Amino acid sequence: MKIKIINPNTTLEMTESIRKMAESVCDSDTELLVVSPETGPASIEGYVDEYMAALGVVDEVIKGDKENCDAYIIACFGDPGLQAAREATDKPVLGIAESAMSVAKVIAPYFSILSVLDRSVKVTDDLVGAYGCKEFCRSIRSTGLDVLEFGKNPEKGLEALIEQGKKAINEDGAECILLGCAGFVDFVEAMNKELGVPVLDGVSPAVKLAEAFVKLGIKTSKVNTYKYPEKKDVIGFESIKEGLYL
Amino acid sequence: MKIKIINPNTTLEMTESIRKMAESVCDSDTELLVVSPETGPASIEGYVDEYMAALGVVDEVIKGDKENCDAYIIACFGDPGLQAAREATDKPVLGIAESAMSVAKVIAPYFSILSVLDRSVKVTDDLVGAYGCKEFCRSIRSTGLDVLEFGKNPEKGLEALIEQGKKAINEDGAECILLGCAGFVDFVEAMNKELGVPVLDGVSPAVKLAEAFVKLGIKTSKVNTYKYPEKKDVIGFESIKEGLYL
Amino acid sequence: MKIKIINPNTTLEMTESIRKMAESVCDSDTELLVVSPETGPASIEGYVDEYMAALGVVDEVIKGDKENCDAYIIACFGDPGLQAAREATDKPVLGIAESAMSVAKVIAPYFSILSVLDRSVKVTDDLVGAYGCKEFCRSIRSTGLDVLEFGKNPEKGLEALIEQGKKAINEDGAECILLGCAGFVDFVEAMNKELGVPVLDGVSPAVKLAEAFVKLGIKTSKVNTYKYPEKKDVIGFESIKEGLYL
Amino acid sequence: MKIKIINPNTTLEMTESIRKMAESVCDSDTELLVVSPETGPASIEGYVDEYMAALGVVDEVIKGDKENCDAYIIACFGDPGLQAAREATDKPVLGIAESAMSVAKVIAPYFSILSVLDRSVKVTDDLVGAYGCKEFCRSIRSTGLDVLEFGKNPEKGLEALIEQGKKAINEDGAECILLGCAGFVDFVEAMNKELGVPVLDGVSPAVKLAEAFVKLGIKTSKVNTYKYPEKKDVIGFESIKEGLYL
Amino acid sequence: MKIKIINPNTTLEMTESIRKMAESVCDSDTELLVVSPETGPASIEGYVDEYMAALGVVDEVIKGDKENCDAYIIACFGDPGLQAAREATDKPVLGIAESAMSVAKVIAPYFSILSVLDRSVKVTDDLVGAYGCKEFCRSIRSTGLDVLEFGKNPEKGLEALIEQGKKAINEDGAECILLGCAGFVDFVEAMNKELGVPVLDGVSPAVKLAEAFVKLGIKTSKVNTYKYPEKKDVIGFESIKEGLYL
Amino acid sequence: MKIKIINPNTTLEMTESIRKMAESVCDSDTELLVVSPETGPASIEGYVDEYMAALGVVDEVIKGDKENCDAYIIACFGDPGLQAAREATDKPVLGIAESAMSVAKVIAPYFSILSVLDRSVKVTDDLVGAYGCKEFCRSIRSTGLDVLEFGKNPEKGLEALIEQGKKAINEDGAECILLGCAGFVDFVEAMNKELGVPVLDGVSPAVKLAEAFVKLGIKTSKVNTYKYPEKKDVIGFESIKEGLYL
Repeated sequence: MKIKIINPNTTLEMTESIRKMAESVCDSDTELLVVSPETGPASIEGYVDEYMAALGVVDEVIKGDKENCDAYIIACFGDPGLQAAREATDKPVLGIAESAMSVAKVIAPYFSILSVLDRSVKVTDDLVGAYGCKEFCRSIRSTGLDVLEFGKNPEKGLEALIEQGKKAINEDGAECILLGCAGFVDFVEAMNKELGVPVLDGVSPAVKLAEAFVKLGIKTSKVNTYKYPEKKDVIGFESIKEGLYL
Repeated sequence: MKIKIINPNTTLEMTESIRKMAESVCDSDTELLVVSPETGPASIEGYVDEYMAALGVVDEVIKGDKENCDAYIIACFGDPGLQAAREATDKPVLGIAESAMSVAKVIAPYFSILSVLDRSVKVTDDLVGAYGCKEFCRSIRSTGLDVLEFGKNPEKGLEALIEQGKKAINEDGAECILLGCAGFVDFVEAMNKELGVPVLDGVSPAVKLAEAFVKLGIKTSKVNTYKYPEKKDVIGFESIKEGLYL
Repeated sequence: MKIKIINPNTTLEMTESIRKMAESVCDSDTELLVVSPETGPASIEGYVDEYMAALGVVDEVIKGDKENCDAYIIACFGDPGLQAAREATDKPVLGIAESAMSVAKVIAPYFSILSVLDRSVKVTDDLVGAYGCKEFCRSIRSTGLDVLEFGKNPEKGLEALIEQGKKAINEDGAECILLGCAGFVDFVEAMNKELGVPVLDGVSPAVKLAEAFVKLGIKTSKVNTYKYPEKKDVIGFESIKEGLYL
Repeated sequence: MKIKIINPNTTLEMTESIRKMAESVCDSDTELLVVSPETGPASIEGYVDEYMAALGVVDEVIKGDKENCDAYIIACFGDPGLQAAREATDKPVLGIAESAMSVAKVIAPYFSILSVLDRSVKVTDDLVGAYGCKEFCRSIRSTGLDVLEFGKNPEKGLEALIEQGKKAINEDGAECILLGCAGFVDFVEAMNKELGVPVLDGVSPAVKLAEAFVKLGIKTSKVNTYKYPEKKDVIGFESIKEGLYL
Repeated sequence: MKIKIINPNTTLEMTESIRKMAESVCDSDTELLVVSPETGPASIEGYVDEYMAALGVVDEVIKGDKENCDAYIIACFGDPGLQAAREATDKPVLGIAESAMSVAKVIAPYFSILSVLDRSVKVTDDLVGAYGCKEFCRSIRSTGLDVLEFGKNPEKGLEALIEQGKKAINEDGAECILLGCAGFVDFVEAMNKELGVPVLDGVSPAVKLAEAFVKLGIKTSKVNTYKYPEKKDVIGFESIKEGLYL
Repeated sequence: MKIKIINPNTTLEMTESIRKMAESVCDSDTELLVVSPETGPASIEGYVDEYMAALGVVDEVIKGDKENCDAYIIACFGDPGLQAAREATDKPVLGIAESAMSVAKVIAPYFSILSVLDRSVKVTDDLVGAYGCKEFCRSIRSTGLDVLEFGKNPEKGLEALIEQGKKAINEDGAECILLGCAGFVDFVEAMNKELGVPVLDGVSPAVKLAEAFVKLGIKTSKVNTYKYPEKKDVIGFESIKEGLYL
C-alpha cells in the first residue's frame, strides 16, 4: 500500500517532521510518499495562503494517481483543498483536522483545539462546523505565535501550547486536546505528559485511517458531488488541466 | 492485539455473521473475540431491548479487561451502552453506527441509513444527532421488516434493502448508503453491486478503526466524564458491581 | 388517581425526601406510591449507574401497571430509562429534568442547572439538547460534591449550591435556577429565599404535570416509537421478560 | 383559584367553544374567566391581526390582575402577546401553542401541527423554533380554510383536518397531532377517534398547566427580561398606560 | 424616490437624530420622510413597548402608501412590527437591526451588539436568531443605561458604549461593533475612532439598502406569508381597519 | 465610484451578460470594470473549478486596488475566493450568492435556489449554511443542465428553470426564487413574468449593495481574520506574491 502525505506548504522542515511522525505509526508494509507541492506559501495562516496551497494539493493528487498511490493525506490543519482533492481522484483523501476530530469524538465528549494566530480561529471554527463537531468542541485557542515561529523557537512554542492547553481543560471543559497545526507533531509527547488528558496531532490518526480505508477497499463516492471535474476549457493551470480536464 | 467484538443481542447466528465479516477485514495478527452477552434480548429494536443489552455490553467489557483485550466494538447499529462501556474501561470502545458514520463522512457529502422497523427510526435519528451528522444524513429509511426476519428470509430482506436504498439515492440525494443493523453484514456485497454508490456496514470500519486506535496507543480520556464509576453501594448486578464498584 | 414516583437509585433517605416534596404539592385525592427499585446503585452519577437504574425503573413501571397506577415519574435529574418506560406502559411517564425544563421555559427566558459532580455535566447537557432547550439553558454548573455528600452534609451542600446559583445569575444570565438532582428537593425553599429568582426542583412540577395528564386522559402514543416491545426471546431479566416479552 | 382565559380575537362564538372545553377539564374549584378583548380582529391569521390582538391580551391581563386572577391563558395558537403579557403581570401566563407542544413532547417523539391558511405556516414555524421544538415537529400542514370558515362549515373543516392529519401521520412520521387553532377545540374528539394517534388541542393542556403553576406557587421571573415595563411617557393606549406606565 | 423612516417611539429628539444621520447618507434625489407615530411609548425597551410601537409603525406604513412612499425603514433596533409592516404594503420594508447585521456579515466574520438595558438582551438575541446570525454574533452586551439616559447624558452614554465595545473586541472576539439602538447614531463617529474596528449604526445601512431596493424595483413577495391581511371585522384600531381590512 | 465586477470564469459571453445586467442597474456616476481573470476554467461547477477561479479572483482584486477600485463583486453563485479577496483588499467585497440571499430575506420568509448540475447542490448548500440561511432556504433545485448549455440553448435552459421554479413554489413553499448561476441573468425578466413571485439574480443586488457600501464608507474589518496575508515566502503565484506577500 502506498500513501501520499501532502504537506500543503513549502517548508520542507515541516514536511520532514510530518514524515517522521507518519513513519513512526504506519504499518511496516505501508509505503509513504511525503511531499510538499512545487508551489505555494511557506505556511498557511489565512485564506489566500489556503487557496494557493489547495492547488498544490490537487497537483500532487493528480501526480499521485500516476504514482499508484492508494490514499492521500492533506497534512495541514485547515484541510486545504480537501473537497477538490476528492474530485480529482477516487482514492480516499483524508484531512488531518477531519481525522483528529473523528478520533477525538471516540475518546472524549469534549475537545479543544490549539491553533497558531488569532486569524486562524475563524477557519478552524468553520471546519469544526463543517465536520459536525460544534457540540463537541469547547474552544479554539490561539497561541498568538505564527507557524514558522514554532520551528524557530520550539521551547517558546511548547510553553505557549501548554499554557493554552491548561486553560482549555480548566476553563473550557476540554477532556482532550487537538493540536491545530501539522507543525505541532513534535510537541505531542511533551504535551501528553504535561496535560493529563489525551493530546492528539492529526497526522498519526490520518495515517491509520488511510490504511484502514485502503484495506477496506473503501473509495470516494463518485456518483455526484465528487465526480471528476466536467470536461471544459481551462486557461493556465497546465498540470491540473492536463490531469483532469482534457 | 486482541479486539473484543460484542454483539449486544443473544442471537448467535448474528454473532457468527459479525465474526465472519470482522475476520475478513482484520489484520493477520489481530486476535478477535466475538461474543454475545450471557443475558439480553434476541434482537434490539426498541428502548427496553437496548437497556438490557447495554448491561450485557458492560459485563463483557469488564470481562474483556481481564482477558487483556485492547479495544472493544459494540456491534449493533444503536451503539447500546457505548458511553457506559467507555466508563468501564480505559481501552477504546467503538460503536458500529459511530464508525460507519465516521467513514461515510470521508467518502461522501451525504448518506442515508437503511434500518429495520419504523420504530427504530427515532433511535437512529438520535444517534445521527449525537454524532454531529444531522447535516450529512439525508434520510433514515426503514424496511418494515424486523431484525430476525432478515435472518430467516434473506432474499426478502435484501430486496427490501435494495428498494429503500434506491429511493434514498434517487429521492433523498444520498451518495453513500449505511446499513443500519449489524445483521446486514451479509448483504454488503450484493448491495454494493446493485446500487452504484458505496454501501457500508458498520462492523468492518469499526474493526479497522479499533486496530488503528490500539496501534496509536490512544485510549479513552478518563479525566472527567468517562472516569470509572464512583465507588458506591449497588444492589444486584453482581458482576458489574464486583468489576467496577468495589 | 394513583401516581407512582420512582426514585431510580436505592438510597431510601432520598426516596423519603422525594415523597415529602411530592406529598406537599399533590392534590388531596392523589394517591402517591413512592419507591426505589429493588436493585440498582445508591446514587446516579455516571452512565453505568444510569443503565442499571434504568432497568429498575422499567421493573417498577411493569409492577405499577399491575398496581393500577395512572402515571409515572422518574425522580432523578438524568431521567434514566425514560424512553424505555414509555415503551413499557401506555400511561404517561414524566422525567423530573424534563418537567423542570418545561416549567422553567414558561416563567423565564433563560435558566441554569446546578448539578453535582463535573462528570454529570455531559449527561445533563445531552438532556438539555434532547428536550430542545439549548437556547434557554445558559449554563450547567457543578458543585463538585457527589450525590450522597449532600445528604451527609446538607449545610455544605446548600452553601455550594448557593455559590453556583449566584454565579449562574450574575455571570451567565440565568433568570431561573433548576436543581439538577432529586436529592436537592430539601434545598428549594432556602435557595428561593437566597437567590431572588425562581428556584425549581423537578419533583414538584412532575407531580402536577402527571396529575394534569391523568385528568386530561392523555396517554403515550403507542403507534410507533413507543409501542410495547416486540415479542422475542430474552435471556435473564426475568421480571421484564415476563412483563413485556411473553 | 381564578384563571383568566383570553381568546385574543373578538369572535364570541369561539370564546364560547374555548370556555366549554376549558370547563370540561378544569378542577371543580377552579374559577374560569373566559373573555375576548374589547378590541381586535375577528380572527388571527397574519401579523397585523396578531399585533392588534396582542394589545387586547395585555389589556385583559392588566384588568385580570385587578380581578385577582391567578394565571392567564392566551387561547390562540399563535400565542399573541405572550411575552408582553409576562411583562404585564407576575402571574404565570401560558400560550396554548406552547402548552400543546409541552404536552406533546412527553407522549410522542414526533408531532405535526394542523393549521388554517398557508400564510399561517411561517408564524407557526417560528413558534416551533422559539419553543425549541424543531426536532420534534415533523410538519406544519395547512387546510387552506380560514379560521371563520371552520365555524360556518364545521363538517368541511373536520374533513380537511382529518385529511391533513392522515398525511402528517403517513407521510411525515407524526405520532401525535396538534390542532393549530383555538377554534379547533370542537374537533378533538372526532379526530381522536379517526386518526389513531393522540390529537391535542392547546386549551385543555393550558388549563391544567395553569392550575399546576398556581398550586405550585410558581410565578414569572421578574428579575430582568420580564420585569414590569420601565416607567415612561406613552401617547395613546390609555388603559395600558394607566395600568403599567404611571 | 421617497423613503419613509419611522422612529417607532415618540421621542422627537431621537427622530431628529435619525433624520440627520439619514440625510447625511441618502442620495441627493432621495426624499426622506422621517416621522414618529402619533401614539406609542417614549422609548422601546421591552415587549409591551414593542407591541404598542408596532401598531404605530403599521399606521405610518398605511399612511405612507397614500403619500406615495417607495420604501419604509423601521428605525428601532428591535425592528418592531417589521413583519406586520410587510403585510401592510408591497413596498420594501427594512428594519435597522436587520440592515446592520446584513452589512456586518459582509465586512467581518464576527460582530457584537451593544444594547441598552439588560432586559433588551433577550429581544436582541431573538432577532439575531431570526436573521440567521447566531454564528456571527459573538455577544450582546448591555450598558445598563436606559434609552432616554443616552439623550440626557451623552458623555456617560458614550463612555459606557466604549467600555462594552472594548470588551466585545478583546474578550468576545468581535471584529465589528453594531450599535443596538437607533438613538446611538450620534455616537458612531466617536466610537469608530476609539475602537479600531468598524462600528455600524443601523440607520445609515438601512437608508442605502432601501434606496437599492427601490432602484432595483424589488418588492415584498405578496404570494403567501406577507399577503395583505384577510378582510374581516375589526373592533377598534380605526385607521388600521380602514387602511387594510375594509 | 469605480466597482470591479469579476466573473471568475473565463467565458467572455458570460462576462458580457453580467456587464449588461450590471449596467442596467448601476447609478449613472458609477464606473464599472467587468472582467474575467486571465486564467481559470470556462465555467465553475465543482471544487477544482472553484479553487482555480478563486486565485483568478484574488489576482483581479490585487490589480483592482492599483486601478483605484472602490469595491469588488464576485459574479459566480459559488462566491469563489470571497474570503481570500477580503484578505487581499480593505475595500468591500461582495459575492452574488451572498447578495441575493441578503436581499431575499428582506422580501420573503422562504426562498429556493435554482442551480445547474446536481453536483453543485452541495456547494450551494454549504453557502446557504455559511450565510446563516438554512431556515430561509426551502430547497436547492438543479436543472441537470451544465453552465455552458444555458448559453448555447437558452430556450431549453429557461424552460428547465421555469419547471424547477414552479416546483419550488408549489411543493417546497418558496415565496421567492434565486437564480443560482451568474449566467442566468438573462432569464430574470422572463421568469419574473412566469412565476408570480420575485425572481432574483445575484448580480443586480450585488451592484447596488456595493454602491451602498462605498457611499457609506464601510470597509472590511482588517483587525484580525481578514488582515492582509502575513509576509512570507511563496513559490510560484508571482502576481499574488508580488501584490500581497513582499
